[in-house]
Amino acid sequence: MTKRDRLNADDIAAGLADLPGWSLAEDGLSIEKTYRFKSFVEAFGFMSQSALAAEKLDHHPEWFNVYNRVDVKLTTHTAKGVTALDLALAARMEAAASPACP
Amino acid sequence: MTKRDRLNADDIAAGLADLPGWSLAEDGLSIEKTYRFKSFVEAFGFMSQSALAAEKLDHHPEWFNVYNRVDVKLTTHTAKGVTALDLALAARMEAAASPACP
Repeated sequence: MTKRDRLNADDIAAGLADLPGWSLAEDGLSIEKTYRFKSFVEAFGFMSQSALAAEKLDHHPEWFNVYNRVDVKLTTHTAKGVTALDLALAARMEAAASPACP
Repeated sequence: MTKRDRLNADDIAAGLADLPGWSLAEDGLSIEKTYRFKSFVEAFGFMSQSALAAEKLDHHPEWFNVYNRVDVKLTTHTAKGVTALDLALAARMEAAASPACP
C-alpha cells in the first residue's frame, strides 16, 4: 500500500482521531476542517505555511478563504478518496495553525 | 463619495472596462474572476502578492484555490455592493497575475 492508495473507513477514522476538528465529508471522499483565526494576516500566515508543506508533499488542498476563515478540503483525486497523503497534509496544517511555543 | 460607497452600474461597468476577465456577479453585488496559472506555486505566488495588497488596502478577497486555479470574488460588505475598493484590489490582483518584465 502506498501513500496514494485509498484508505478504508477504519483507517480514515483512526487517522482522524489524531486530527481535532477534522471530519470525513458526507460523501466519504474527502476530509474537511474550517479554521478561524484572529485576523486575515493570521489566516494567510497559516495558508502560507500550509502551501509550503503542500508543495513539499506534492499534494495540494482545496481551500476557501474569507478574512479570518479558511475552509479546507483534502482529497486524492487519483485515488478517488482519502489517502495517507491527505492525513499527512492535515497534520502539517494542524501544526501550521498552532503556535510553536507554549 | 468615499472608496467605501457603493458604486452604481455605470461606474462599475466603467471600472470593469480596465479589468480584463473580471465581470459583475449575477446578483450585482460583487465582481469575479477565475485565474489559472501553470502550477500551484504560481497560483500561490499570485495569492501571496494579492494578500499583501489586500492587507495594505484593508480590504480582503473571498477566494477559492485548487491547484493552479484561483476563483476570486470581491465585494464590500458594509456597502452591500461593489465599491472603488473592490476595483482597486482587482487592479492589484491583475498586476500580481502579470509578469513584471516582458
